[in-house]
Amino acid sequence: MVRVSVNGYGTIGRRIADAVKLQPDMELAGMVKRTPDYWAFLAMQKGIPIFCPDPAARTRLERAGVKVEGLLEDLFARSDIVVDCSPEKGEENKPLYESAGMKAVFQGGEVHSIAGVSFVAQCNYLEAVGRQYVRVVSCNTTALARVLKTLDDAVGVEKGIATLVRRATDPEDCAKGPIDSVVPDPVELPSHHADDVRTVMPGMDLTTMAVKVPTTHMHLHALALKVKEPDAGKAVSALLGAPRILLFESKKGYRSTANMINYAREIGRPRGDLYEVGVWKESVKVEGDWLYLFMGVHQESIVVPENIDCVRAMTGEEDASRSIQMTNKTLGMVK
Amino acid sequence: MVRVSVNGYGTIGRRIADAVKLQPDMELAGMVKRTPDYWAFLAMQKGIPIFCPDPAARTRLERAGVKVEGLLEDLFARSDIVVDCSPEKGEENKPLYESAGMKAVFQGGEVHSIAGVSFVAQCNYLEAVGRQYVRVVSCNTTALARVLKTLDDAVGVEKGIATLVRRATDPEDCAKGPIDSVVPDPVELPSHHADDVRTVMPGMDLTTMAVKVPTTHMHLHALALKVKEPDAGKAVSALLGAPRILLFESKKGYRSTANMINYAREIGRPRGDLYEVGVWKESVKVEGDWLYLFMGVHQESIVVPENIDCVRAMTGEEDASRSIQMTNKTLGMVK
Repeated sequence: MVRVSVNGYGTIGRRIADAVKLQPDMELAGMVKRTPDYWAFLAMQKGIPIFCPDPAARTRLERAGVKVEGLLEDLFARSDIVVDCSPEKGEENKPLYESAGMKAVFQGGEVHSIAGVSFVAQCNYLEAVGRQYVRVVSCNTTALARVLKTLDDAVGVEKGIATLVRRATDPEDCAKGPIDSVVPDPVELPSHHADDVRTVMPGMDLTTMAVKVPTTHMHLHALALKVKEPDAGKAVSALLGAPRILLFESKKGYRSTANMINYAREIGRPRGDLYEVGVWKESVKVEGDWLYLFMGVHQESIVVPENIDCVRAMTGEEDASRSIQMTNKTLGMVK
Repeated sequence: MVRVSVNGYGTIGRRIADAVKLQPDMELAGMVKRTPDYWAFLAMQKGIPIFCPDPAARTRLERAGVKVEGLLEDLFARSDIVVDCSPEKGEENKPLYESAGMKAVFQGGEVHSIAGVSFVAQCNYLEAVGRQYVRVVSCNTTALARVLKTLDDAVGVEKGIATLVRRATDPEDCAKGPIDSVVPDPVELPSHHADDVRTVMPGMDLTTMAVKVPTTHMHLHALALKVKEPDAGKAVSALLGAPRILLFESKKGYRSTANMINYAREIGRPRGDLYEVGVWKESVKVEGDWLYLFMGVHQESIVVPENIDCVRAMTGEEDASRSIQMTNKTLGMVK
């Protein structure tokens, strides 16, 4: 059993903690919390062991009525690997992991060089095997890498141009905008996402542009890909056969990102999470030697299976497809 | 003086009526209204002559207290040209214009064949000179045509891929969605906008994809253009020099579509209208032989100057730049 701890209990950390508990070969050693907010109490209700980064935080949580198991060093003493889910504080935390001799998974908000290896399971699993540090890329990059790898293998991608229509913020965030406006983000082109894809797929000729809109549930990507074999049928077949990509048909009622999330809610996914990239089937179209499609990306959950596979690779599992299949099965991702 | 009537008093019709009143060479003969809603009363307050399509409508309006000047035939008797601003009812109305021998301008919601000529002033003004029927293209097409023409002239556009992030509905519309979702619209690619651009710029190799988002104020386009001369500086100069295109700098605070509209409000434009295409200056970027940019499109007002120029061309003015300059001056579009 691999003992996994989670440092940071935000949008991603909470989901990874739950996903670890579902793995037959992992156990959740605990998670790190600083503030006695409602998530601390919900974690306590779920029986997740709570640890604090320092004595002051411990006092704060205990005074508020949160049961604390110990400090960071206590958590590390009972862990084999930590998944850093801090709000882009990986660089600050890395020395703690180094001095404790802990393996660590970082998230896509960190720079590639924090680990030297960036990870998407179905693209480069083997690069993470046995490593001390690995970075799981962000939600948008994960989605792009899954789809580009699948289509590159099937029809050969020579160049890509992607426009990312990003959700403003997560559904639980009541403080941030924008409202009633579209925000180029960043306004200076191109956006960083293409470079980030190249940390996983070096040499991919891709340009990305991103805007932010007043929605909370998913990003939407509009992809234009110059391909060697402009065959929409072959592309659809490849997407249908690939792990962690689902095709949704508009004519069945999947008209928007909201309907994709509703699918996840209806099939009983925890928190209404859609771990898969959702491609609109009718959108896959060829014009000349370019292939076009729309896809939806659930920003809160798409990296959860990648983190699980990443832990497995770093702690010795050398068979990518065995890990991917186990993760898919435990998280309910059956095609 | 060219006597202009406006059939339909919605988002576009109201604006064209006001714009006609500002032209030294035109007079507003009147407009056509069917229902005694608040726009009828506002028009009455402004002294705009109101006509009805039939006696029943006249009775309805008069009973509600709206002063009615007469019926459609009375309006046509005192008009040289009608601007059809009906909600995509141009095909239904055209026989009325034919039997009255009226010249008619149609809007972009109609098919190209309704007039045989589609119009964007700075692209193909001369095609409309003296014509009986002309169609002014839609807001998105107008914006694309203005920018593509300018860039094609300056740096040579070989191919274009545009993603349109469309506003859900207009600010006054309290009934429609979407809310909190991104809707591929249409989901089947490509969207019709590229074909529509080709009604004005035949042979333009362009593919368009469109999604709808929960905003009301502007569309945003992300453009990727393969160009003969990949020179961002030259592109910016051309955009700066072109009529009806404004460059907005993000670093000065123009961060979103909302800020572009706020510019129009602050400079005193009626209704906060932005007749120009707004291009984010910092977004204009070259990578390889592709040029990228973001631009904003005020869906309610961008076609207003085009309608004015179209009326002028159809009623005999042969000098495109004289018409464009007069329209720009009267509507306050000074660079």
